[in-house]
Amino acid sequence: MENHINDKRYSLEDLPENVAKFYRSVPFPHDYATNFKSIKEFARQCQLSHSKTILITSGGTIVPIEKNMVRYLDNFSGGGRGAATAEYFLEHGYHVLFLYRKNSLQPFIRHLMLHDTNFFTFLSYNPEQHLAYVSDTYKEQVSNLFMKWKSYIDSGRLLRVHFETVGEYLYYLRASTIELSTLKRNMIIFAAAAVSDFYIPLDQMSEHKIQSKNEGLTINLDPVPKLLKLVVSEWAPDAYTVSFKLETDINILDAKCQTSLNSYHHQLVIGNLLSDYKNWVVFHTPSKPAMYIRKTEQQIKDHVDIEPMIGERLKDLHRIYCDHPPHTTTNHNHNHHQQN
Amino acid sequence: MENHINDKRYSLEDLPENVAKFYRSVPFPHDYATNFKSIKEFARQCQLSHSKTILITSGGTIVPIEKNMVRYLDNFSGGGRGAATAEYFLEHGYHVLFLYRKNSLQPFIRHLMLHDTNFFTFLSYNPEQHLAYVSDTYKEQVSNLFMKWKSYIDSGRLLRVHFETVGEYLYYLRASTIELSTLKRNMIIFAAAAVSDFYIPLDQMSEHKIQSKNEGLTINLDPVPKLLKLVVSEWAPDAYTVSFKLETDINILDAKCQTSLNSYHHQLVIGNLLSDYKNWVVFHTPSKPAMYIRKTEQQIKDHVDIEPMIGERLKDLHRIYCDHPPHTTTNHNHNHHQQN
Repeated sequence: MENHINDKRYSLEDLPENVAKFYRSVPFPHDYATNFKSIKEFARQCQLSHSKTILITSGGTIVPIEKNMVRYLDNFSGGGRGAATAEYFLEHGYHVLFLYRKNSLQPFIRHLMLHDTNFFTFLSYNPEQHLAYVSDTYKEQVSNLFMKWKSYIDSGRLLRVHFETVGEYLYYLRASTIELSTLKRNMIIFAAAAVSDFYIPLDQMSEHKIQSKNEGLTINLDPVPKLLKLVVSEWAPDAYTVSFKLETDINILDAKCQTSLNSYHHQLVIGNLLSDYKNWVVFHTPSKPAMYIRKTEQQIKDHVDIEPMIGERLKDLHRIYCDHPPHTTTNHNHNHHQQN
Repeated sequence: MENHINDKRYSLEDLPENVAKFYRSVPFPHDYATNFKSIKEFARQCQLSHSKTILITSGGTIVPIEKNMVRYLDNFSGGGRGAATAEYFLEHGYHVLFLYRKNSLQPFIRHLMLHDTNFFTFLSYNPEQHLAYVSDTYKEQVSNLFMKWKSYIDSGRLLRVHFETVGEYLYYLRASTIELSTLKRNMIIFAAAAVSDFYIPLDQMSEHKIQSKNEGLTINLDPVPKLLKLVVSEWAPDAYTVSFKLETDINILDAKCQTSLNSYHHQLVIGNLLSDYKNWVVFHTPSKPAMYIRKTEQQIKDHVDIEPMIGERLKDLHRIYCDHPPHTTTNHNHNHHQQN
């Protein structure tokens, strides 16, 4: 990438062996140059406006099984949490870089993508004028949502960049965190995307569609390196960084969150269970006891979003983080890194 | 399923061992009863109207890796071919049962789901009235598409049933072909869905999310039984049945199509290559040499759909098939089956 040739921050040489190998073992995103330019410009605008900024990653990542991809492994995530969180922070004055899986849920639009709805769900038809129009039932809701969506995009407060594969995702995660790192403590990294833990390197991948011969199939996958470590120690060491732990087994959730904090030395791990991630989450931070955010019975019944409750708590934590800069010139995260 | 208790056609007892095992090894679709009723009623309406009918299967199928599904294997297919084919046959008088992967492309709507478009792409906003409306640029296109969509659904000519997993798909394939089989030769089965060749039986599936331990992962999958054989020999032996072969390697395409015809004794295999499936396909039938359908250079440049060309040829083949009933009382397909 010509953008990166003279930029030491993008050099693969100084990276851990497994990370450099990963980046070399996945295809470069084909629209990277355009998106990189947008991200750079967005970071400049955030700096100029002195606005707080949040990078939200959202949706699952796919892992191709063949070079000529017919089959792929995917991670379940509709992207609802990321999209709802983007709304909250937009409405509370933040700039939002929304890094999302193609065709997953997006802020504001998500309210119109429930169940088996589609574009036509919201239209009515006037046969005399031969005209489709937004039906009276939805007119107010659609107008409200569209107006917000349009104003945040037009004003440059919301930038959307999409990915599909785990390789594309990790290229854009690197670009976003490095370019936004100039915002220092004014930035939150909200890593809600369900990133695959495993992938197949290009050189181990079948060229063509794997043939079925009425036999079974065995797929061998390599581990995806944990890039959160690099985000925290190298790419955006001053940011307030939040990661997620999604589990299906409640008995291991807290321990997994703590292990994550101890491994990456970031600010917050939000734990949740697949079965009821919409009803409660738990905040694990290095310094405080675990904090639970739970919807009331009534809120569950009313299908109230939990994301504004998460957002409010996070915004408070971020304000405290911004108001209390580190005592030493070397910041807290760097200290942690150096201990490793 | 109570609907099936006294219906021998749905008994798993008489099925080949691997097929019965498959149906017992995947969860029953949770909205099956409702959809089954719709399919039954649709078949009754097709019969009453003496209309020709096409069952179109469309989109990919997913294969869960865990019982509490976080990861799954998927098959690439946007569903464009199935959706475009549905339009063609609706506009040429057929009833269409559209069995599609949730969130894949649907007839008419597909024209509004190109690239990174969404609902809001087609709206404008009037700030004085605080009102969103279908923008002038798209008014005519959206009105046309919506009018068609609405009229085909309202008249009962188009029934949509969606699936996600390969198990759900094969439950609905069985229900659709069995219930529509009363239409005899008036029915086409157009099996365009990209069905997974492999799956993990429930009893071999991890209960919880598989943990990553900075090690690789090996996934072992069993073969999915080829139900096309049962469709042709048992479930809908009189239908005109079309299957697809999607390959990435041109050198094996024709042989794969022929093998498929020889194995299942159906009427037509349409071969295509992943790299340019929008530009040409090849028809393999038992009695005629391979027939190619190719777009011209100009049609490729103009992004003209190939599906109406495929549809026209198929409609002709189906008309000939309907006009020439089998000579013997036992039909052609049954003969084939008995030879197996």
